[in-house]
Amino acid sequence: MKHIALLGSTGSIGTQTLDIIRTHPDKFSLISMSAGRNTKLAITQINEFKPETVSVAEEKDAEKIRAEVPAGTNVVYGGEGLKEVAVHPKADFLMNAVLGSVGLEPTLAAIEAGKVIGIANKETLVTAGHIVMEKAKENNVQVLPVDSEHSAIFQCLEGSHTDEVSRLILTASGGSFRDLSRKELNGVTVEDALNHPNWSMGAKITIDSATMMNKGLEVIEAHWLFGIPYEQIEVLLHRESIIHSLVEYQDGSVLAQLGTPDMRVPIQYALSYPKRLELKDTKRLNLWEAGTLDFKQPDFKRYKCLQYAFDAGKEGGTMPVVLNAANEVAVEAFLQKSISFLGIEDVIEEAMNRHSALKNPSLDTILQVDQETREYVRTRLN
Amino acid sequence: MKHIALLGSTGSIGTQTLDIIRTHPDKFSLISMSAGRNTKLAITQINEFKPETVSVAEEKDAEKIRAEVPAGTNVVYGGEGLKEVAVHPKADFLMNAVLGSVGLEPTLAAIEAGKVIGIANKETLVTAGHIVMEKAKENNVQVLPVDSEHSAIFQCLEGSHTDEVSRLILTASGGSFRDLSRKELNGVTVEDALNHPNWSMGAKITIDSATMMNKGLEVIEAHWLFGIPYEQIEVLLHRESIIHSLVEYQDGSVLAQLGTPDMRVPIQYALSYPKRLELKDTKRLNLWEAGTLDFKQPDFKRYKCLQYAFDAGKEGGTMPVVLNAANEVAVEAFLQKSISFLGIEDVIEEAMNRHSALKNPSLDTILQVDQETREYVRTRLN
Repeated sequence: MKHIALLGSTGSIGTQTLDIIRTHPDKFSLISMSAGRNTKLAITQINEFKPETVSVAEEKDAEKIRAEVPAGTNVVYGGEGLKEVAVHPKADFLMNAVLGSVGLEPTLAAIEAGKVIGIANKETLVTAGHIVMEKAKENNVQVLPVDSEHSAIFQCLEGSHTDEVSRLILTASGGSFRDLSRKELNGVTVEDALNHPNWSMGAKITIDSATMMNKGLEVIEAHWLFGIPYEQIEVLLHRESIIHSLVEYQDGSVLAQLGTPDMRVPIQYALSYPKRLELKDTKRLNLWEAGTLDFKQPDFKRYKCLQYAFDAGKEGGTMPVVLNAANEVAVEAFLQKSISFLGIEDVIEEAMNRHSALKNPSLDTILQVDQETREYVRTRLN
Repeated sequence: MKHIALLGSTGSIGTQTLDIIRTHPDKFSLISMSAGRNTKLAITQINEFKPETVSVAEEKDAEKIRAEVPAGTNVVYGGEGLKEVAVHPKADFLMNAVLGSVGLEPTLAAIEAGKVIGIANKETLVTAGHIVMEKAKENNVQVLPVDSEHSAIFQCLEGSHTDEVSRLILTASGGSFRDLSRKELNGVTVEDALNHPNWSMGAKITIDSATMMNKGLEVIEAHWLFGIPYEQIEVLLHRESIIHSLVEYQDGSVLAQLGTPDMRVPIQYALSYPKRLELKDTKRLNLWEAGTLDFKQPDFKRYKCLQYAFDAGKEGGTMPVVLNAANEVAVEAFLQKSISFLGIEDVIEEAMNRHSALKNPSLDTILQVDQETREYVRTRLN
């Protein structure tokens, strides 16, 4: 029995993680969880899975929840609560599925406590990849990807030595505007953007998909997860999103992982690794149903955010922190219609240009640069 | 240093195996080899690689060769010679790259002698898969595929348990007549057939590719190599031959192996397994250069030989022996213009219909059924 600690139980990855736990009650149990502000769903989840420890964002929500869940449930809150969930003594595995940088500290605490980590949170590796991976190495802890692209690469690497890899190739659908020229991109609206062809996702990640910043952040994550230099990481446009990513080895052989869009596959693989379990109700991939798969090289002038991400990754230090923070604020501003779609790029470029990257930053420095960047960009946009 | 015994040094797989050995003189050396009737090339190879034991088909060729190779080279001949090459005491690895059933007995001898086996010969597994794989298991010997499709599957299985597999999917280019209807197939000539789009191959395998018997034989091989029931083996038409085959796992995740057409990749992988070595001058795969990949379901009424192969495999026993022998004689007859292209199917169907499969046949029974089938078909065609 693997005991799972889950950060972010009410989000998309969180609820699908619970789906997997529900399907294999003999293999997995939920030992602790954190939820944000959706207390209604959290209460339902707690009553179904009966975790020992639960954390919510606010103290008042903790009180409210206590009255509606099994007596004896340890209900905590805030940053300390998150950490308590992450390092639950009985937990074998921490699924980090919270949004934003709040997942970072509990994840580091869980690594120190020797838990296997499932990473479904971009910020953790984008902003603090050097700290997370070094600590994981020190504590001999596995960091397993949950993102479909990184899970694909991980599956293609299975059984092979990373030093035999010549290229990691991340596929990208190209987002909802992939068929528009830069000139046409000028006029696109929020409504246009929130209409992604293959995966149904939240607003932020949908915009990141349209700008390809999403892929850029994944490139940085891949660099940290697999220890591969940026020069050996490529992005390939593949509109059908059926090949989730590829690995080329030094003998020229390429392995790819494919599937229908179902996030439960990578989630379950992280939970069941190194074994694979049945996933009965997933739609099987029949390539003859797809008929054709298309591939194109991305144009870095067309997808400037992708270029910025490679630049920030190669620069290293605090530069990816600035990239990520500036992007978050810029996307927020676009969603609130205060800047244009192409304005997102300008904001990121400006924030990166004014920043001098600090090498090998501490957690405090990371949080500080993150904060400063957000404030600068917000001031700049008002 | 891995010492290689090579059966079939002057054929396509043989010369490419020697290419790999030449490129990695610190990792591989040729300890013994067999050549057929191309003594000129054999002499050049012997003088370059200086194997200790060499076998040729005929006694007179052995005498001729002795005079032109380093003194002390043990030059032998015939069936016994092949066996001597295969079980050379210093050999770690036997590459079985001879055509036809002559490779079977030396391969079994090498398995008993504990050599790792590389299989680039269809007949060995098609006709005697049950004997070969059982003996390999008994002697705890690895049987590694060299065919690009089986190597693809093997690479996709690496690190995983076969009991987690739900489907093996072998890709097929569809051969040189893939765009013709059955009606159009009626009139095709030998010259039409020997014009394969992706791989340059010998005449026999080119015809087998056009009838898809080649794929059918591969299905039977895959069954034996990976221990997967026929019900879980599928064939997928993929004209570009870039995806060499795929494995679907029980969680719905699909792994694929891809590459440009270069047989040295699977050959080297078998030799270097479980490591991968560099292969510097192979053409790298860039999917954006291909642009699109196409997939179709094969029509078993269009490709009757594929149906016959599945039927023979499922029937088991000596039925695949009949399938293979009838096909060989039929293809020969087509190449000699004594039957039509679609006549190949008729010959195989008739031979299978008149045969009652013997279960779990011995080597002797296999050879006898093979002989009888060839004689029957030849008589029938005259």
